[in-house]
Amino acid sequence: MSPKISDEHKELRRQQILEAAERVFIRKGYEPATMKDFVEEAEMSRGWIYLYFQSKEEIFGALMEKFDTANAKEMNEQLEETDSTWEALVALLNQQKKDLSATAESLSPTFYEYYLSGWRDSLRREQLTRRFERSIAGYTRLLQTGVDRGEFNPSLPIALVAKIIVSQLDGILSHTLAVGAEQAEADRLLDALIVYTRQLLGVSK
Amino acid sequence: MSPKISDEHKELRRQQILEAAERVFIRKGYEPATMKDFVEEAEMSRGWIYLYFQSKEEIFGALMEKFDTANAKEMNEQLEETDSTWEALVALLNQQKKDLSATAESLSPTFYEYYLSGWRDSLRREQLTRRFERSIAGYTRLLQTGVDRGEFNPSLPIALVAKIIVSQLDGILSHTLAVGAEQAEADRLLDALIVYTRQLLGVSK
Repeated sequence: MSPKISDEHKELRRQQILEAAERVFIRKGYEPATMKDFVEEAEMSRGWIYLYFQSKEEIFGALMEKFDTANAKEMNEQLEETDSTWEALVALLNQQKKDLSATAESLSPTFYEYYLSGWRDSLRREQLTRRFERSIAGYTRLLQTGVDRGEFNPSLPIALVAKIIVSQLDGILSHTLAVGAEQAEADRLLDALIVYTRQLLGVSK
Repeated sequence: MSPKISDEHKELRRQQILEAAERVFIRKGYEPATMKDFVEEAEMSRGWIYLYFQSKEEIFGALMEKFDTANAKEMNEQLEETDSTWEALVALLNQQKKDLSATAESLSPTFYEYYLSGWRDSLRREQLTRRFERSIAGYTRLLQTGVDRGEFNPSLPIALVAKIIVSQLDGILSHTLAVGAEQAEADRLLDALIVYTRQLLGVSK
């Protein structure tokens, strides 16, 4: 009974479902969102959606994957756009300003809810550990590129510098969620992080 | 019908209830915990507990108040113990190492759950804003003491330095919760934060 459609069409449908689910998660958060909500938001039949995803968990997993892939792609693009690893890193950190100003209308609160409310759930803990490792590995690779190019002469191991950067970004994000970008002074915190990172990396002119 | 007891006894009972509730929250998290759990854990009658607290929310509020007051007290004690504001600050930051190593068995995951799952709840948002302001104000006062004593010559406004410190502490805490103190390298992140703070404050010898 499943309709015959091309791979391209399939991928388009899949993206439409993910976009609809993202809007629902942003509006309602994780726990209250249901497959029924996604069906209504996507304006597809229930059967269509279940061809692609069996559960809310699966849809959320696909959304996380989509965002992680997009972030990795952005990092690579920034690196390709310029010969300067430092400029690529600054562009990435400055991009966070834009992201943070829209954080309340993003998936961030739902990500936090999923991981922190689900903190006692071993599956979510494993996912969280994998995402942590992926994020640190991404920044470490970027820093290694700068070392290889002779741009950086870091005073600390680059994996530790990556952890400093990512933990500070997460701290700024959580404050922005808590009280808003303005009261948290998110932009100034990011500017300070850029200055600090430059120094940790011993960036040459 | 309410039993006649001295103020001292009342306070003792209140503390016993809060301690029992804390154990329950640590074990179960916020949402699953119930007044019935507190009654059982405290081994008091239901009536006794309701003399003191009307709801789970009220008990959690009292626990937050208790911890914030203890933190403020600790900060003041550190300041009184030494003439050096810098030493007091370092002692506070080093204390975090101990706290972080036990964070999975502390109320931290429950605090996060309460605020971040409750992120769409305006009452919790207000509480979170108040706690943020209180925490920044506490650190700002400590930094101002160092300025007044001629110990610090900060390159940035001290309220911003306070935000840098607290956001970084929160980032380190969230990574520690995510993957544990060892994988997060919490101690080394705190050591780096101390070096960085020293420099931001322009600490004189």
